[in-house]
Amino acid sequence: MTSSNALRKAVETYWAAAEARDWTAFGEVLADDVVYEMPQSRERIRGKERYLQFNREYPGDWHVHVLRIVAEGDEAVSWIQVTEGIKEMYAVNLFTADESGRIVAITDFWPEPYEPPAGREHLAERY
Amino acid sequence: MTSSNALRKAVETYWAAAEARDWTAFGEVLADDVVYEMPQSRERIRGKERYLQFNREYPGDWHVHVLRIVAEGDEAVSWIQVTEGIKEMYAVNLFTADESGRIVAITDFWPEPYEPPAGREHLAERY
Repeated sequence: MTSSNALRKAVETYWAAAEARDWTAFGEVLADDVVYEMPQSRERIRGKERYLQFNREYPGDWHVHVLRIVAEGDEAVSWIQVTEGIKEMYAVNLFTADESGRIVAITDFWPEPYEPPAGREHLAERY
Repeated sequence: MTSSNALRKAVETYWAAAEARDWTAFGEVLADDVVYEMPQSRERIRGKERYLQFNREYPGDWHVHVLRIVAEGDEAVSWIQVTEGIKEMYAVNLFTADESGRIVAITDFWPEPYEPPAGREHLAERY
């Protein structure tokens, strides 16, 4: 089992390197056989080379702000805010490390805003 | 700091109690001043009584399957699948415990399916 601290550092490096578009540093925390999954679109990218290419090619002048990292053993989760101009989104990212401490699985969620359903205004305030 | 193990158990109880509609057991793991937030709809529910009522009133014959819990100190994350008949959804839930180990903050994300944008078919397979 990887120590939480090692995986936390890997996730911190992952996001710092993504923000800096430093794909060398980004690749160093990834296992060669990393698998990246997006359950919302049911897309899967296999292998470090393809995943690096996906990130290099990803369009937009986006910026990442890490809001929270929770790390336990060989699993970690990050909650991030991504801004692109005035547009902002949140993502939640689930990470699994292999025995060497490299990230071998990433499951990404990109929840989009929605209007609250009727019937709970008596309990919920808006913010 | 709460031990990860204590918060993990609280989150396990939270979901088992929700699945059983056992609102007494559910309430026992919540702090009186728990705050529940849904960033997608920017809704916030303050306090255990209102949050219990929200859950009691939530419609549908839904069932919860816990896919993963990651717990570290006073923070934890769960990834769940919720089914209702043939409908299935995922949610990711961020928890914070207070000093007594009760859940004092919950941030819920309910990411919905979407079609992948064009331009990455050369890297991503569908599953």
